[in-house]
Amino acid sequence: MLRVTTFGESHGSAIGCVIDGCPPGIPIAPDDFEHDLERRATGKTRHTSARHEADAVEILSGVYEGATTGTPIALLVRNTDARSKDYNRIVEQFRPGHADYTYWHKYGIRDPRGGGRSSARETTMRVAAAVIAKKWLADRHGVRVQGWMAQIGDVVPRTFDAGVIEANPFFWPDATQVPELESYMDALRKSGDSVGARITVVADGVPPGWGEPIYGKLDGDLAAAMMSINAVKGVEIGDGFASVAQKGTLHRDESSRNGFLSNHAGGILGGISSGQQVRVSVAFKPTSSLRLPGRTVDMDGNEVEVITTGRHDPCVGIRATPICEAMLALVLMDHALRHRAQCGDVGEVSPRIPHGVMS
Amino acid sequence: MLRVTTFGESHGSAIGCVIDGCPPGIPIAPDDFEHDLERRATGKTRHTSARHEADAVEILSGVYEGATTGTPIALLVRNTDARSKDYNRIVEQFRPGHADYTYWHKYGIRDPRGGGRSSARETTMRVAAAVIAKKWLADRHGVRVQGWMAQIGDVVPRTFDAGVIEANPFFWPDATQVPELESYMDALRKSGDSVGARITVVADGVPPGWGEPIYGKLDGDLAAAMMSINAVKGVEIGDGFASVAQKGTLHRDESSRNGFLSNHAGGILGGISSGQQVRVSVAFKPTSSLRLPGRTVDMDGNEVEVITTGRHDPCVGIRATPICEAMLALVLMDHALRHRAQCGDVGEVSPRIPHGVMS
Amino acid sequence: MLRVTTFGESHGSAIGCVIDGCPPGIPIAPDDFEHDLERRATGKTRHTSARHEADAVEILSGVYEGATTGTPIALLVRNTDARSKDYNRIVEQFRPGHADYTYWHKYGIRDPRGGGRSSARETTMRVAAAVIAKKWLADRHGVRVQGWMAQIGDVVPRTFDAGVIEANPFFWPDATQVPELESYMDALRKSGDSVGARITVVADGVPPGWGEPIYGKLDGDLAAAMMSINAVKGVEIGDGFASVAQKGTLHRDESSRNGFLSNHAGGILGGISSGQQVRVSVAFKPTSSLRLPGRTVDMDGNEVEVITTGRHDPCVGIRATPICEAMLALVLMDHALRHRAQCGDVGEVSPRIPHGVMS
Amino acid sequence: MLRVTTFGESHGSAIGCVIDGCPPGIPIAPDDFEHDLERRATGKTRHTSARHEADAVEILSGVYEGATTGTPIALLVRNTDARSKDYNRIVEQFRPGHADYTYWHKYGIRDPRGGGRSSARETTMRVAAAVIAKKWLADRHGVRVQGWMAQIGDVVPRTFDAGVIEANPFFWPDATQVPELESYMDALRKSGDSVGARITVVADGVPPGWGEPIYGKLDGDLAAAMMSINAVKGVEIGDGFASVAQKGTLHRDESSRNGFLSNHAGGILGGISSGQQVRVSVAFKPTSSLRLPGRTVDMDGNEVEVITTGRHDPCVGIRATPICEAMLALVLMDHALRHRAQCGDVGEVSPRIPHGVMS
Repeated sequence: MLRVTTFGESHGSAIGCVIDGCPPGIPIAPDDFEHDLERRATGKTRHTSARHEADAVEILSGVYEGATTGTPIALLVRNTDARSKDYNRIVEQFRPGHADYTYWHKYGIRDPRGGGRSSARETTMRVAAAVIAKKWLADRHGVRVQGWMAQIGDVVPRTFDAGVIEANPFFWPDATQVPELESYMDALRKSGDSVGARITVVADGVPPGWGEPIYGKLDGDLAAAMMSINAVKGVEIGDGFASVAQKGTLHRDESSRNGFLSNHAGGILGGISSGQQVRVSVAFKPTSSLRLPGRTVDMDGNEVEVITTGRHDPCVGIRATPICEAMLALVLMDHALRHRAQCGDVGEVSPRIPHGVMS
Repeated sequence: MLRVTTFGESHGSAIGCVIDGCPPGIPIAPDDFEHDLERRATGKTRHTSARHEADAVEILSGVYEGATTGTPIALLVRNTDARSKDYNRIVEQFRPGHADYTYWHKYGIRDPRGGGRSSARETTMRVAAAVIAKKWLADRHGVRVQGWMAQIGDVVPRTFDAGVIEANPFFWPDATQVPELESYMDALRKSGDSVGARITVVADGVPPGWGEPIYGKLDGDLAAAMMSINAVKGVEIGDGFASVAQKGTLHRDESSRNGFLSNHAGGILGGISSGQQVRVSVAFKPTSSLRLPGRTVDMDGNEVEVITTGRHDPCVGIRATPICEAMLALVLMDHALRHRAQCGDVGEVSPRIPHGVMS
Repeated sequence: MLRVTTFGESHGSAIGCVIDGCPPGIPIAPDDFEHDLERRATGKTRHTSARHEADAVEILSGVYEGATTGTPIALLVRNTDARSKDYNRIVEQFRPGHADYTYWHKYGIRDPRGGGRSSARETTMRVAAAVIAKKWLADRHGVRVQGWMAQIGDVVPRTFDAGVIEANPFFWPDATQVPELESYMDALRKSGDSVGARITVVADGVPPGWGEPIYGKLDGDLAAAMMSINAVKGVEIGDGFASVAQKGTLHRDESSRNGFLSNHAGGILGGISSGQQVRVSVAFKPTSSLRLPGRTVDMDGNEVEVITTGRHDPCVGIRATPICEAMLALVLMDHALRHRAQCGDVGEVSPRIPHGVMS
Repeated sequence: MLRVTTFGESHGSAIGCVIDGCPPGIPIAPDDFEHDLERRATGKTRHTSARHEADAVEILSGVYEGATTGTPIALLVRNTDARSKDYNRIVEQFRPGHADYTYWHKYGIRDPRGGGRSSARETTMRVAAAVIAKKWLADRHGVRVQGWMAQIGDVVPRTFDAGVIEANPFFWPDATQVPELESYMDALRKSGDSVGARITVVADGVPPGWGEPIYGKLDGDLAAAMMSINAVKGVEIGDGFASVAQKGTLHRDESSRNGFLSNHAGGILGGISSGQQVRVSVAFKPTSSLRLPGRTVDMDGNEVEVITTGRHDPCVGIRATPICEAMLALVLMDHALRHRAQCGDVGEVSPRIPHGVMS
């Protein structure tokens, strides 16, 4: 029901999106986009790419006198700091780990500037669109979405404090580890190499019943949404791959009158939300754009070494938290609307197991 | 372009599917379905549920004189060994780890017989539909799909021999471990508990260029397809979550004139196939239907202990290999058709990096 | 939201459909389908084809203890009176006015038995699916759908009496003309020729607000739905082509406090229902299957004369009334669900112009 | 496969569209849009609205070095001559024949400036998107699309000369009637009233085989596309409603070795193109925006008289020809791509009936 269409290349004149199916009457102003776009932006700390985009959102349509009208919402962001000349040298080469080679074979043509359409610049518009979804979920259903970095390289959080996540550049839930991460990233940047990351996102307050059996499963749609983010190589719901080594007596979430006793399922059973916290983990691969030389072939088939000199992130995962939050919010809102379409008459049924001590 | 619509409940009169968008002229006969349905079926060994279904496929439409006509293909399988009385006792209870509770809250009504629509019985029709997809992929593009069990509980294969996968009931790639697995499963069944599994599926021969950037990404569609299988909690493409701890210099797949030097990406870059082997791993949770009692609530909100007495698999992953293969084949065929729609004129472009020593 | 997938050929073993997205809790039994399938059936009077199908509906899934469960509903009807040998002679010929030639060029293969997939036999399943839609629209929204024949050849109704429509085999609204129509049809059948018809269908009780601007317009979807019925060549909403010669002062429907003063728009403005009666007219071409010889070519490119000896309707429009009603009901239900998805919070706004003296 | 998403309101800051699924390698430049946008534009002659928009198309994405890349193409047109103050007076009133009342009841909110989203201004972007479709159809398949006005009020062309259509402001195929039309329109404009129109569009060179049986019928999709244009109340394929009074011996298009002997079907049989000229007729209602007072109610439910003082067309049909052409081109291109997806292997089959003397 909710459909987001994005467009734009990394180094084209602009990027943007059109949101169809959004309910009317949601208050929205250009300022509302700032917070999340800042969180996603590069150039804020030395740990991300030096590209500095203004990311000013222009609302082209669908909003009248400060509220959505129900008609298509178009958002536009002009690219202001594209430096396409950085890419001149790689026009004729296929960068290892990049989509250069696959785009070339698909289309027989490609826009080499900053990765063109395959650049993570596109995710800006997902974050922008999700600002509206987050607002609607919070106001209409009391649903709150939050993400954090759950692993970078071999480092995992020692403790979990939701309160510190937004207070450090890594979205890291243990404040005491931040200096260690700063050093880790400095060394990494100096080495010219990059590293992967795991992001976890959760939604609290999702009522039981969202999602459709079989082909519109909530977990299936979440998997597609997360996997469609650049550099993502894996998606888990709840315990994910840890389930492989678990026994059924452990994994199945029992419940008492006071609530569920565990949440191995990640809040989804049979493709439908259970009322528990929805929990998704996402694996990001290490950035492929490195100034360390890599072996590849050029367009004439010759073996060459390629060095990527543009401005890049040593760990794309650092900025990925708001993007994963965005995809979770968009999928949840879509399913909230779809559920209302089919089951708007069903109403509350009993019994409802409390969310309980476990999230 | 290729669309499979399934229907049917575990203990209803029949299950079936309709396949829209299938190219004409593919030779198909009822016998063609037997092999893969046998591989997925229960009741073949003591390691799977004792339910014994004939799984005889009736072709209702879309096939004339032994070949597809291009019009909708409907397949029907009658349920012959449903024992709904096994479920009488749980009609009023929400089984832990099952979709009973979520269906109830979504629809305010549910079919309790064998899990109804949420049963893995539905996957029969995916396997059936994919028989046609596998055939088309092989005949038209030389693409071959194969899966195996890559982990069960804590056990992983010690070696890999594709030739033995079909020769044991576990789709296990190391024949020397089969006796150990037999004992493992016997002990598990005796204990009344269950365990999870990891399945890996690969496709060889996929040309570069299948998949669409951003919203129709090949990996995104694969993630959705796999996650929509019952009991799946995680999906990985290529190295998946292992990428989190990798360095970029390791992960990015370099290439020489003779081919790619590695395949960490799993054959997909930017959502588009690269010409390397497409590799997907899938996590299955342990079965929740156990004869060991579990705590839950009944429909009046009372705390109860539930024991599931129906016929169940101690590891659903054992029969999951052909199901994962089916989803891979269906997604690949859909993308092959979509690619032809948009880029049918592009033709072969140079250079094409050989598949190389690494798959 | 509501999606009907049909399958089956005229002379295959069965036809059927799968209905996705249907709300749960709608009471439905096999008997419910009888009335409308009887109205659509051939062989009831001498004015329609002599083919006599039992049209017994088997509910394969999605209904439990007499009510829809929210999961896919599959309906199956076996073909019992196919006489494919009637078609032996035309296997090698392209019948004028039929889809033989176009199917052949599209697919390079075709099922010649009774027109295969292109037969109006397929509409049986639309009528069956719409039985559920009609029920839901009536129970949930008080919407009532009715159709009639508004023209056959040059004959138009002299008066309009809704009460007599169901009391004659032509769905004709003027009882005094029925003998005249009987003679007209007898003469036509004797001559071996056929004639076209116009069907009008209306829906009363549709609230204002159903339909979406631009690409999901209610009138756009109705046009597609009607045009997708076999033999349809035109669709009008409200005054339709008569609007071409109207002045704006006549066509625009003015309103007073007591209601709209006219309904030239047919109950739809800007793609959205206005609360007035929704009115659609549909043009059916004359049947092309005639025992009068027609010039065509055969599969070797030779000029031949073709005579169609199967059992056919001299006016397909006679049985088209329930089919047009079905498409109207299905589109309205779909839009009711879509409207609830996006605008379920909007609630009743003021003022609401009464339906008024004019429908 | 080809998907056009439009956005923007009549008096918002901009309108635009995103085109997904477009093949790569189509040469396209901003200048290419000028010709058709000029044909659709207002303010060129005294017979259309005095609003004068520059309609300068900015290509935001999807085109690199003068050719489409296969990724989403975004087009943007800034609104430069919106005079929203013209609409102040009607903010509180529901204009008869307009979508004011239906938008209000759907959304509980509306943008009253120039009709907001329901304005025909939106059709600018359909015409722009279709420039690419027309180009691709011509270059790739030799398909040529042309439209003309076939009736205005009671006036119909006396003769048909395709060569004069573009040489008069009415797209009228008989040059001798143009002075008569000029006088007719002058008198109409002076009277303050408006009138309807019929537009006919044809496509020559469409090969047999485009379109899908049942739910993706070429005629069904054309009907939806045309009916989705503002002010359209009817759509006909081929003989349309005239078929109602025809005999089957007349309507069915016979053929000889030299070609079809007639084209009553309008080039489509069974939802699939036959290789003959595709012919569609469209009914436009008279403009509802009149300076002659009309009875309606205001938002407080009071009866009022409304006069529309903005700049409007006395006959929207005058500018509708390029819009109908656009919808025909977009639907044909979509079906060409879909046909290639499913049946790209079928190739040419014999015999192919020549287009023949009749178009």
